[in-house]
Amino acid sequence: MTDHRRLPCRTEFTFWRPVGVRWGDMDALGHVNNTLYLQYLESARIGYFEAIGWGMDRFSAEGRGPVVASQTFHYRRQVAYPAALEVGVVCGEIRQRSFNLEYGVFHAGTEDLVGNGSTVIAWMDLAAGRAVELPEEIRRCLERSRGAPPAPSP
Amino acid sequence: MTDHRRLPCRTEFTFWRPVGVRWGDMDALGHVNNTLYLQYLESARIGYFEAIGWGMDRFSAEGRGPVVASQTFHYRRQVAYPAALEVGVVCGEIRQRSFNLEYGVFHAGTEDLVGNGSTVIAWMDLAAGRAVELPEEIRRCLERSRGAPPAPSP
Amino acid sequence: MTDHRRLPCRTEFTFWRPVGVRWGDMDALGHVNNTLYLQYLESARIGYFEAIGWGMDRFSAEGRGPVVASQTFHYRRQVAYPAALEVGVVCGEIRQRSFNLEYGVFHAGTEDLVGNGSTVIAWMDLAAGRAVELPEEIRRCLERSRGAPPAPSP
Amino acid sequence: MTDHRRLPCRTEFTFWRPVGVRWGDMDALGHVNNTLYLQYLESARIGYFEAIGWGMDRFSAEGRGPVVASQTFHYRRQVAYPAALEVGVVCGEIRQRSFNLEYGVFHAGTEDLVGNGSTVIAWMDLAAGRAVELPEEIRRCLERSRGAPPAPSP
Repeated sequence: MTDHRRLPCRTEFTFWRPVGVRWGDMDALGHVNNTLYLQYLESARIGYFEAIGWGMDRFSAEGRGPVVASQTFHYRRQVAYPAALEVGVVCGEIRQRSFNLEYGVFHAGTEDLVGNGSTVIAWMDLAAGRAVELPEEIRRCLERSRGAPPAPSP
Repeated sequence: MTDHRRLPCRTEFTFWRPVGVRWGDMDALGHVNNTLYLQYLESARIGYFEAIGWGMDRFSAEGRGPVVASQTFHYRRQVAYPAALEVGVVCGEIRQRSFNLEYGVFHAGTEDLVGNGSTVIAWMDLAAGRAVELPEEIRRCLERSRGAPPAPSP
Repeated sequence: MTDHRRLPCRTEFTFWRPVGVRWGDMDALGHVNNTLYLQYLESARIGYFEAIGWGMDRFSAEGRGPVVASQTFHYRRQVAYPAALEVGVVCGEIRQRSFNLEYGVFHAGTEDLVGNGSTVIAWMDLAAGRAVELPEEIRRCLERSRGAPPAPSP
Repeated sequence: MTDHRRLPCRTEFTFWRPVGVRWGDMDALGHVNNTLYLQYLESARIGYFEAIGWGMDRFSAEGRGPVVASQTFHYRRQVAYPAALEVGVVCGEIRQRSFNLEYGVFHAGTEDLVGNGSTVIAWMDLAAGRAVELPEEIRRCLERSRGAPPAPSP
């Protein structure tokens, strides 16, 4: 998992997804609730999977695919509505049956880091309910995604 | 309240707010959950209040302001992620202590209506817990907002 | 739809579902956000369908079933965490291709009404995307549910 | 943070909070969305703070209090509606300006672990926006909470 003291820079991320903060994302303390950041990561993660050519429909069809096994998030600054954020994603460590995605959440177009985190994604056989080996095709997609960044979203 | 058979056109609305659908807005049936549309309206409503010069901070400061008393929404089409929507808002009937906001939710930049609805907003004295007369200033803001549309959002 | 001035009593409802308010249900104004009530109704509605013998799995299997076409909710009192609520449900008008469910949300075990509302449920052919005639079996289930109340949940 | 391989037992936790899963907690994959677990932890955390005599109202009054700095969660099993869960909480490491809460989410009344995680809570001066030393009183509350379990909730 990520070292909680290290603050990532924008240049580390290869895929970006904008997120518009909704008024309803705030909680009774008047800022974006801590659970919402995971929803922002989720949208970014699904966008990232699509960008490397792997849609959620294939998941249903094949019965094997990525499942969130574990998540860590470091809250760096409180955010209030209205705000425009963007989530950077980069593939981290790749293992036999799992890999990491690393995220940085920034105020849009700035180096102003709001939070950062990491997801461990296991490659699951859904029927069997256990992690299976990452297909070679997926491994190559993930590796390629690190080297040559897909065009950033606006 | 709105006649459920009448489908509003874009030209009826004077204020617009874009809404990016999140993957997490979908429910177990695979489309945007019906409760989320009210969250979209909420963001649009708060944007509308700001556009006519009435921010939520004044609400806290003055102890009087708009409270949602009642809401109706007609679901016209199911929406799945990814989708870009926009919510049109227009002030409807204005009464002694309350007024209506009418909404149309469209696929962004199209006449493709996803749903439409209406909110009854009561002007509340929060401490007393009861509706009070609409201030003349607010009444004028609301009326003006119907005549001369604010610049639409992109 | 429901007359907004009439406040329903507990005795009108035939099915009950408890709802525990979560801290995160509150919004930046410090009370339960207005969109959450529709989520409470949703849980109650699905419980009601199960109680009359119509599970959501049948929906997927048959490709026909209940879809929320329209919803109205009247907010009567603001609720803050912690609170224990319960939602009463009763079948209202039954038409050719749709029917109404009526709801009352109360503080648990009291006559203290928090809000009430109504849903128009259309019987949809999902593939065709249009309302179809209510099956006779469903019509009977709905009618029976009004006469003889199922055992209330605790 | 928690070692991801170690599965906690019920006996490790000193405070319990029941959580009723709502139908709307499920996502398009048909099980409880991964962001919702953090909402379950949040309700449990606030209950825990209240149980050790420290309500959120004091937070607002004093301008100092607990803020979530970091969170980790390990997803062990997928959960579908309907389900009754309960969250166990125990105070972990206590440091100068922060402490850990550890959580286990179980199917209610069983050893069936659904997930477990950990929150780093910083003691913040809200106006200054920085962590300050844990008050001695809070430190004692936290330590006491580990030794003598408060009565578990039903």
